Amino acid sequence: MPPLPRHAVIREVGLRDGLQSLPRIVATEQKIEWIRAAHAAGQREIEVGSFVPARLLPQLADTAALVAFAKTLPDLSVSVLVPNLKGAEKAFETQADLLLVPLSASLEHSLANLRKTPDEVIAEVARIRAARDASGAKTLIEGGIGTAFGCTLQGHVAPDEVLRCMQALLDAGVDRVSIADTVGYAGPRAVHDLFAKARRIAGDRLWCGHFHDTRGLALANVYAALETGVNRFDATLAGIGGCPHAPGASGNASTEDLAFMLAEMGIDTGLDLPALLDLRAQVARWLDGETLHGALWRAGLPNTFARASKRDALTA
Amino acid sequence: MPPLPRHAVIREVGLRDGLQSLPRIVATEQKIEWIRAAHAAGQREIEVGSFVPARLLPQLADTAALVAFAKTLPDLSVSVLVPNLKGAEKAFETQADLLLVPLSASLEHSLANLRKTPDEVIAEVARIRAARDASGAKTLIEGGIGTAFGCTLQGHVAPDEVLRCMQALLDAGVDRVSIADTVGYAGPRAVHDLFAKARRIAGDRLWCGHFHDTRGLALANVYAALETGVNRFDATLAGIGGCPHAPGASGNASTEDLAFMLAEMGIDTGLDLPALLDLRAQVARWLDGETLHGALWRAGLPNTFARASKRDALTA
Repeated sequence: MPPLPRHAVIREVGLRDGLQSLPRIVATEQKIEWIRAAHAAGQREIEVGSFVPARLLPQLADTAALVAFAKTLPDLSVSVLVPNLKGAEKAFETQADLLLVPLSASLEHSLANLRKTPDEVIAEVARIRAARDASGAKTLIEGGIGTAFGCTLQGHVAPDEVLRCMQALLDAGVDRVSIADTVGYAGPRAVHDLFAKARRIAGDRLWCGHFHDTRGLALANVYAALETGVNRFDATLAGIGGCPHAPGASGNASTEDLAFMLAEMGIDTGLDLPALLDLRAQVARWLDGETLHGALWRAGLPNTFARASKRDALTA
Repeated sequence: MPPLPRHAVIREVGLRDGLQSLPRIVATEQKIEWIRAAHAAGQREIEVGSFVPARLLPQLADTAALVAFAKTLPDLSVSVLVPNLKGAEKAFETQADLLLVPLSASLEHSLANLRKTPDEVIAEVARIRAARDASGAKTLIEGGIGTAFGCTLQGHVAPDEVLRCMQALLDAGVDRVSIADTVGYAGPRAVHDLFAKARRIAGDRLWCGHFHDTRGLALANVYAALETGVNRFDATLAGIGGCPHAPGASGNASTEDLAFMLAEMGIDTGLDLPALLDLRAQVARWLDGETLHGALWRAGLPNTFARASKRDALTA
């Protein structure tokens, strides 16, 4: 086994990637409680929503209010998704710590989901970077490369095209890049290969892996990415989410199962697992009737777990 | 990534580890159809039942008939679980290809589940080996070390105790050993560590990894074991199963999800995935009302999958 990172970060994206895929609108007060409790459980990176027109995603229409609340919490990186310059300008105004611009490496998915080619997205990213520089905003810019392992519309996506997009995003001025298996096509070997190559291009600017659990491989894929040195992962509590424009996609890596795996591996996340499970139960009540995912909540933590954590604390 | 095995075998244990945990009794004709279809889909190792008293596990009372049928199929290794010499004698009589004797590395679990200490099981294994030698039977003997990563009763199980049991089983005359995470306590790092050490003791006699998906980590654990060179894994269609004496344990690695992962990794299993998914649908009808698991069946195979298989066939 190659040496693994000693620390890892789970970025909670349930409030964006999770809630945007559900038909219901969750009340702003409940989202605020979710952010508060996630922060209390140790989460330090939370994507709170998207700056997209409310008519397209009414579920996320309160994003500005969520950024404002989240910014009051200490040591929390507050991120939002933006599809274009207009969204980015709102991110600058609200002083979000990070904005993520999604790019789809699959041309067909890109046209269906973003109504732009990958190169048109890259050109928009350059405009977003210029606007940030002109405004003096401190918001970091992340280019998130989706459908990096194929997609339900186009099928195969060439790894070289993913890497070309990554280099172009870096050239256009992003601070970070991330790679997403939007539809759950990836397995551990493909993840290891692509993330290893991407690390050679982007180094530590390769910020995050985003794995959907559509076919059950999300956590195996996280392990493969860890082996390449990547140590940030998107996940959603109860594994909610998917891509509304990628038929068949459903379920992100579950935050609580991923946190358990990392803890079992002795990789420090700073997360309080019992508190995360309590929050999951709360979110499950708010989302009563939706299909939820994840395994840990049913079985609970191993009875060896508290002892292991205590032992780690004593020897740390 | 270390070099991975080029071939792997999934041993179907749903008919034993799966069905023994369900309250219903599945008809012998349905089990025979399951075995026939699994063989037709390419499965070449199937655990068809247990030779235990029918009053204890009436679900498995037809094991002798299933062995007799399965022995008619070409190139199929037919295995059974036996708890003791009496069960082993039935395995010899029916000419099962392999018998698995479970040993629990957790003393408390061993007493609760098998009513013997690990050392008493090892002594019984020596008697089974002597009986085989005396009878001239060709049935291989596998020692299956369960609760190898902890258990719900005792908690922590020392890796050194697992390795001691393994050496003692080999000394007692088993042909093969396997390691099981009976209750879903293992994560990839612990799996990698223990399997690497076990390989140094048992070499290729370390035959199989058996991972429950109780906390969602079964496939990540398979990947970690693959990295140590192990290339046989137990799994159950639809992820059914658990241990009736280990509270909270539920769900094996799902055969179809595991087969997909291995295929995605380019590791040849000889399995026909669409046929496996058809069989899963059939088994799900027979088990209507039971809690089933696995993710692939919902999403289906990626649309890139057939092409990838065809490409592999062309370049093989």
